[in-house]
Amino acid sequence: MAPAGDAAPPDPPACTLLVCVTCRAGRALAEGEAPPGRILHDALAGHLGALATAPVSLRPVTCLAACDRGCAAVLAAPGKWSYLLGHLSPALAGDLIAYGAAYAAHASGAVLPSRRPASLRSVVLGRIPALPPADPSPAAIPAR
Amino acid sequence: MAPAGDAAPPDPPACTLLVCVTCRAGRALAEGEAPPGRILHDALAGHLGALATAPVSLRPVTCLAACDRGCAAVLAAPGKWSYLLGHLSPALAGDLIAYGAAYAAHASGAVLPSRRPASLRSVVLGRIPALPPADPSPAAIPAR
Repeated sequence: MAPAGDAAPPDPPACTLLVCVTCRAGRALAEGEAPPGRILHDALAGHLGALATAPVSLRPVTCLAACDRGCAAVLAAPGKWSYLLGHLSPALAGDLIAYGAAYAAHASGAVLPSRRPASLRSVVLGRIPALPPADPSPAAIPAR
Repeated sequence: MAPAGDAAPPDPPACTLLVCVTCRAGRALAEGEAPPGRILHDALAGHLGALATAPVSLRPVTCLAACDRGCAAVLAAPGKWSYLLGHLSPALAGDLIAYGAAYAAHASGAVLPSRRPASLRSVVLGRIPALPPADPSPAAIPAR
């Protein structure tokens, strides 16, 4: 058995939390003010950095096209529903990570609202199913 | 050269238009009334069936979790941004297919509002980037 010090680093989480770092949450910014989306991203990075095992990988993106419903983020993982989230704020960072952990542990990603932190029960703007890899699935209906 | 009659059928379009067929568009339905989402789906199928070459494959889904902003649909293709669309109606079926054709022809899927039919300039609820396949891309920031 290899000594603990030789253990390989853990794989990165399969679940990704994408955060729009340019989001202004629908308002004008003062000169030099950091976008609320950047502040949310950095709050999430701080929370995740304090955990022994992070349930999600954090990834900044520029514009999720939900500007009027920001801050905005996406929970996504291969083969699962992707969830687009809005009306977020840095104060929700801890709850977002708890939701991310529930999402990571769920087979399809369809975590019921009652299984999310109460503060996040109304933040889902929509969801997108995992697309079949190459060939259409039996459920797919070709256009012709 | 093989005669035309032996030609293989064309590949299905790489671009998929997913339509929530259970969407009630935020209202109660009368007894036996078809959901607006189903009517939208069937209108799209009718339009696509009349085309010589369909730019998108149509796929029904149940619940895109945008119930208060329905009818809802998604434009998606491998490696492109996925777009979540709301406030749709059967009258927009033809314009949606025109948007689908522009999306299919665009390298990243990020069709500018000015390049969409005018009726669809405000229907985007959000967008989700294509996830990197297996390993995190250089742009990805691991949580730890």
